[in-house]
Amino acid sequence: MKNEMTIIYLITTGGTIEKVYSEQTGSVQNVDNKIDRYLRMLRLPDSEVRVMPLMNKDSLEMDREVILKTVKELLPEDVPIVITHGTDTMVATGLYLQRAIPELKIPIVLTGAMTPLGFEGSDGLQNLTESLFAARVLDPNFYVVMHNQVFPVHRVGKEQSLARFVWDEKKLE
Amino acid sequence: MKNEMTIIYLITTGGTIEKVYSEQTGSVQNVDNKIDRYLRMLRLPDSEVRVMPLMNKDSLEMDREVILKTVKELLPEDVPIVITHGTDTMVATGLYLQRAIPELKIPIVLTGAMTPLGFEGSDGLQNLTESLFAARVLDPNFYVVMHNQVFPVHRVGKEQSLARFVWDEKKLE
Amino acid sequence: MKNEMTIIYLITTGGTIEKVYSEQTGSVQNVDNKIDRYLRMLRLPDSEVRVMPLMNKDSLEMDREVILKTVKELLPEDVPIVITHGTDTMVATGLYLQRAIPELKIPIVLTGAMTPLGFEGSDGLQNLTESLFAARVLDPNFYVVMHNQVFPVHRVGKEQSLARFVWDEKKLE
Amino acid sequence: MKNEMTIIYLITTGGTIEKVYSEQTGSVQNVDNKIDRYLRMLRLPDSEVRVMPLMNKDSLEMDREVILKTVKELLPEDVPIVITHGTDTMVATGLYLQRAIPELKIPIVLTGAMTPLGFEGSDGLQNLTESLFAARVLDPNFYVVMHNQVFPVHRVGKEQSLARFVWDEKKLE
Repeated sequence: MKNEMTIIYLITTGGTIEKVYSEQTGSVQNVDNKIDRYLRMLRLPDSEVRVMPLMNKDSLEMDREVILKTVKELLPEDVPIVITHGTDTMVATGLYLQRAIPELKIPIVLTGAMTPLGFEGSDGLQNLTESLFAARVLDPNFYVVMHNQVFPVHRVGKEQSLARFVWDEKKLE
Repeated sequence: MKNEMTIIYLITTGGTIEKVYSEQTGSVQNVDNKIDRYLRMLRLPDSEVRVMPLMNKDSLEMDREVILKTVKELLPEDVPIVITHGTDTMVATGLYLQRAIPELKIPIVLTGAMTPLGFEGSDGLQNLTESLFAARVLDPNFYVVMHNQVFPVHRVGKEQSLARFVWDEKKLE
Repeated sequence: MKNEMTIIYLITTGGTIEKVYSEQTGSVQNVDNKIDRYLRMLRLPDSEVRVMPLMNKDSLEMDREVILKTVKELLPEDVPIVITHGTDTMVATGLYLQRAIPELKIPIVLTGAMTPLGFEGSDGLQNLTESLFAARVLDPNFYVVMHNQVFPVHRVGKEQSLARFVWDEKKLE
Repeated sequence: MKNEMTIIYLITTGGTIEKVYSEQTGSVQNVDNKIDRYLRMLRLPDSEVRVMPLMNKDSLEMDREVILKTVKELLPEDVPIVITHGTDTMVATGLYLQRAIPELKIPIVLTGAMTPLGFEGSDGLQNLTESLFAARVLDPNFYVVMHNQVFPVHRVGKEQSLARFVWDEKKLE
């Protein structure tokens, strides 16, 4: 019974974690879903991660309504959801989802990266590993999970100069 | 307040996760603590991981008494403990610790790897990432954490042919 | 006698091969010499590579006079020279050096990368490996060495859309 | 004309360069040809590398007659040949081929690795890169190519304690 597969939804929306280097332009861009390739580096013998590539956008142009619609469609299945997202607007998207979904029976985990997956010094695979783990063990709530940290979305802010998230004690629910 | 550092002890004992390839003998061996090098690949902005290299032994010759003694000395500090260990005897060591420590106020997480850190296809960094995360979020208990799975030590067994751990429903407390 | 060290000069000037990802700006930049770090991944038991970080510039703003001055100062030592360079203007720099140095007793090898060192799919370490090898075995001349190819600088052109160099049959000496 | 493909034969025979870590036995073994996977990491836009997996043997049990037979069959095609081989008996195999093939119109390059491809600190990809390059630029002869060094097979010996090859000045032709 316990040795059955656990389903986790992984919604990808773009952001730094999925950026690629373009040899033609010499810049980094969101072109395509690249998380699949890195997911295959992880051993997940009893987890079935269902990747849903939703969009490939930069953090600043995220379409929150589309994300909300997708999350709402998945909620009846009662399985945890991980959302990869640009870090600049990750908290705003998390708060938007939280306001729109008052009742939650699963954990919804937002994650991303400061440096794209596969670039030297990337935190992408670490954050992906942590988020899939968080999705299995955390209580129902909306979280940001990165860098061995867990933040409820209403208590977190990005510290741009340090390239990390920190607790925001001033924020109220 | 919440932006303070969290301490995690990481006791290393050898096992596959720390094996290195010897160019002189053409075999893999436990020579020295090598977890430090891989730990530096992880971003842990608010975690202070204190590595305690205890021994460098193969799974079969683990000295459980030394591990127990070290764990007992750390318990009064009330901070979570991760122990890297050979996978063949990881469960036995976990059960030994559990029997000897009836009262526990922190999570104690055993982890390791099927393929050494830094070898192609290694699960070492994934398991290390998950265990440091588990140490921060799980309730007090003795666990095996690997491959996106969390097992209490009295409910788990190694499935050698599959190179993974599975739930052992028959085991009694 | 033959087991003595061979000296190779490695002049670094920036270009894609040395670009790094900036977490603050989300773009790739030439900030600092990073070839040292990758050079240490190579085994060079009888080669003493003397790295000379000359500048950290994008291909378009290369200062050829400074490169020429440095090369001329090294010529009396009679040891091969590798120059890492942006690929867009690599050929122009090679032709400039060739015109200014009519007599050559060593090979001068220009190399670079289409994707920065340490980024997924980078050709940087391959090109660095090949260039150091070329510096030891090729006859005196000015070369572009990349992707298992050797071109005299007056017979080569960059094919931007294919992210590679090709023979330019039309060029005259 | 010059932008045509260049053919290189790559005969694989096993040895350390192709060893894999077995999770079942905890040891390294020659199981299968694994060079293909690493070859795909190199950019070879005008080289067609034809991999011929001949055997998967440890250095000590090499079957030189089979290698010689294969090489002889390829000689009429007049294209360079790289042979990956265990380092302990690489020189002996090279000398064996040299004695059996008095006339040579192409370079035959023997290479291998001290640490298997894909293991931390491996020299495998460096040696593979160098050998494919050597196959294109060196004069006809029998060579050992590794670690930015080129040795004619009759002038080289392995220095086991240093995990490298060195010039053997005493050897006579």
